Amino acid sequence: MLKRHGEQTVIFSKPVGIVAASSVVGPKEGEGPLGGRFDLVENGLMFETRSWEAAESKFAKTAVNLCSCKAEIPVGDFEYIIAGDLLNQSTGSIFGLRDTNRPYLGIFGACSAMGEGLSIGGMLIDGGFAQKVMIVASSHFCSAEKQFRFPLEFGSQRPPTSSWTVTGAAAAALTAGGKGPALMGCTTGKIVDMGVKDAHNMGAAMAGAAADTIAAHFRDLGRNPSYYDAIITGDLGHVGQELLLQMLSREGFEIASRHRDCGIEIFDKDTQGTLNGGSGCACSGVVFAAYFYEEMKRGKYNKILFVPTGALMSPTSVQQGESIPGIAHAVIIENWS
Amino acid sequence: MLKRHGEQTVIFSKPVGIVAASSVVGPKEGEGPLGGRFDLVENGLMFETRSWEAAESKFAKTAVNLCSCKAEIPVGDFEYIIAGDLLNQSTGSIFGLRDTNRPYLGIFGACSAMGEGLSIGGMLIDGGFAQKVMIVASSHFCSAEKQFRFPLEFGSQRPPTSSWTVTGAAAAALTAGGKGPALMGCTTGKIVDMGVKDAHNMGAAMAGAAADTIAAHFRDLGRNPSYYDAIITGDLGHVGQELLLQMLSREGFEIASRHRDCGIEIFDKDTQGTLNGGSGCACSGVVFAAYFYEEMKRGKYNKILFVPTGALMSPTSVQQGESIPGIAHAVIIENWS
Repeated sequence: MLKRHGEQTVIFSKPVGIVAASSVVGPKEGEGPLGGRFDLVENGLMFETRSWEAAESKFAKTAVNLCSCKAEIPVGDFEYIIAGDLLNQSTGSIFGLRDTNRPYLGIFGACSAMGEGLSIGGMLIDGGFAQKVMIVASSHFCSAEKQFRFPLEFGSQRPPTSSWTVTGAAAAALTAGGKGPALMGCTTGKIVDMGVKDAHNMGAAMAGAAADTIAAHFRDLGRNPSYYDAIITGDLGHVGQELLLQMLSREGFEIASRHRDCGIEIFDKDTQGTLNGGSGCACSGVVFAAYFYEEMKRGKYNKILFVPTGALMSPTSVQQGESIPGIAHAVIIENWS
Repeated sequence: MLKRHGEQTVIFSKPVGIVAASSVVGPKEGEGPLGGRFDLVENGLMFETRSWEAAESKFAKTAVNLCSCKAEIPVGDFEYIIAGDLLNQSTGSIFGLRDTNRPYLGIFGACSAMGEGLSIGGMLIDGGFAQKVMIVASSHFCSAEKQFRFPLEFGSQRPPTSSWTVTGAAAAALTAGGKGPALMGCTTGKIVDMGVKDAHNMGAAMAGAAADTIAAHFRDLGRNPSYYDAIITGDLGHVGQELLLQMLSREGFEIASRHRDCGIEIFDKDTQGTLNGGSGCACSGVVFAAYFYEEMKRGKYNKILFVPTGALMSPTSVQQGESIPGIAHAVIIENWS
């Protein structure tokens, strides 16, 4: 059977089961609209470690252990762990997962990590290279602010377009076969640079990449937005959502009625001071695990297009006056029985 | 046919051709023992850009374009580009490849990038998801020193165990089928932490990971070192080589007569002041492309185990007193007709 469709999309020969998904978050996420749905809300930003980076690693490790329990598959049975985060040299993932003793594939796609990981993991299983793969994504408000923007103690003002990095981690367990939510294929994104240079407006920087990947997905498969019950981006936030809907509309795709954005869902803009919305590798991961995955199991959604989005900047590239390229990786998730 | 063997190894159902490999390096690499073999030696460390980071990106971009020419496959025909480097948020790869307009999978495995990329790329082709995949790895002495160690202007003394980051980039073009050097399978490494905390001794930090992956490879396939004409690590250097040989000997694997290390090959220790040897994502990539790949085509080697090695540290993790975990990803490359 032909797996490749169009320029960017593959359809798996058999559905790849997502047999479990876990979410661990920090206090602010726990106070948000989805607070009651996360597997674990940790009340301390330090998570009983001695640095924000170590805390982020502990979020990643905890998400792996919870996901393993929920899937009823010991960590030692996973043939690959695929993980990514935002920190320099993937510190969050590496120190969080160094004790797993599993074949490890590190990825970097900024906040699109969960999408890139699910894509690669799905292909490894559908290609016959593994039966069980775990995907992990993590981020931490404090380690991200410190690294990308200003020292927290500086108390800098945040412009209305700025996003709030989600503290937490998500993991997903993929297996060959299984029923319930399953990966059916993926559309791998290209690097798209809209020329945005404002590191406080990542929604704008990523919107073009999201539009590019979603439009490619529809073109590659000859599908319309109505095929999906929901089209869910990672962390475009309010600014990015508006741009995405405009850009896709110009291409002839109207997705407004079914578009959701994890960055919008995770916080209450009016009461939590999160401005544009949530961001970070954990954002799309924990919202998927705690909300969309669960609602698929309950039958509220049967077909979703999940499109984690990433802003591919570094502090150095921003300081050198570079623009901020974006990327978005889409995965098709459908209920399978 | 069973693709999975033992805990960490897969064997492809058909060989995946490496139809071209390119290498672009800086001036010091050009003066080394392999100087005449590289596709392009650029004499300026800035590569006519305005920053070391932009230069690294230009090395990556140039390697892609050269590889495309050598493979006689337009860049636009590759279904995936898989790329990794050492810089924060993979700046080298992202800005170097943002104009390629191809589905992009970013990876992070520090200097093991070429091994991780070849592994994933091989699996994507053997799994039927692509016909053509390009792998890219880059590094730059100045951008790495600035980021990981001291400002160059500081002129710090280097201890004898320190490595010299290779300036340059390598690319490899993979296709379904083809003859000559081909990927036959891979052994994906685990994160291995030997407790080494000295950021100037990465050979020691990585030796354990290399030994772990190579021993797993032999166990998984029931092979002996004599199966291979050469077993080639990435950038262990002189210190790491000695440790690797000791550790493998203790496990019952004697590889001394066939072990080569790209970090040792690329520089002349006695005249170039490179101490432990070369390192960086480009190190194993350019030595493979310019030397081992070419010597396989000439028939000097027919079966090699190529094992790029990575030290998974960040400046933050080192400053916080963390040890330096290592990782090594092995790929089997054999001549195929």
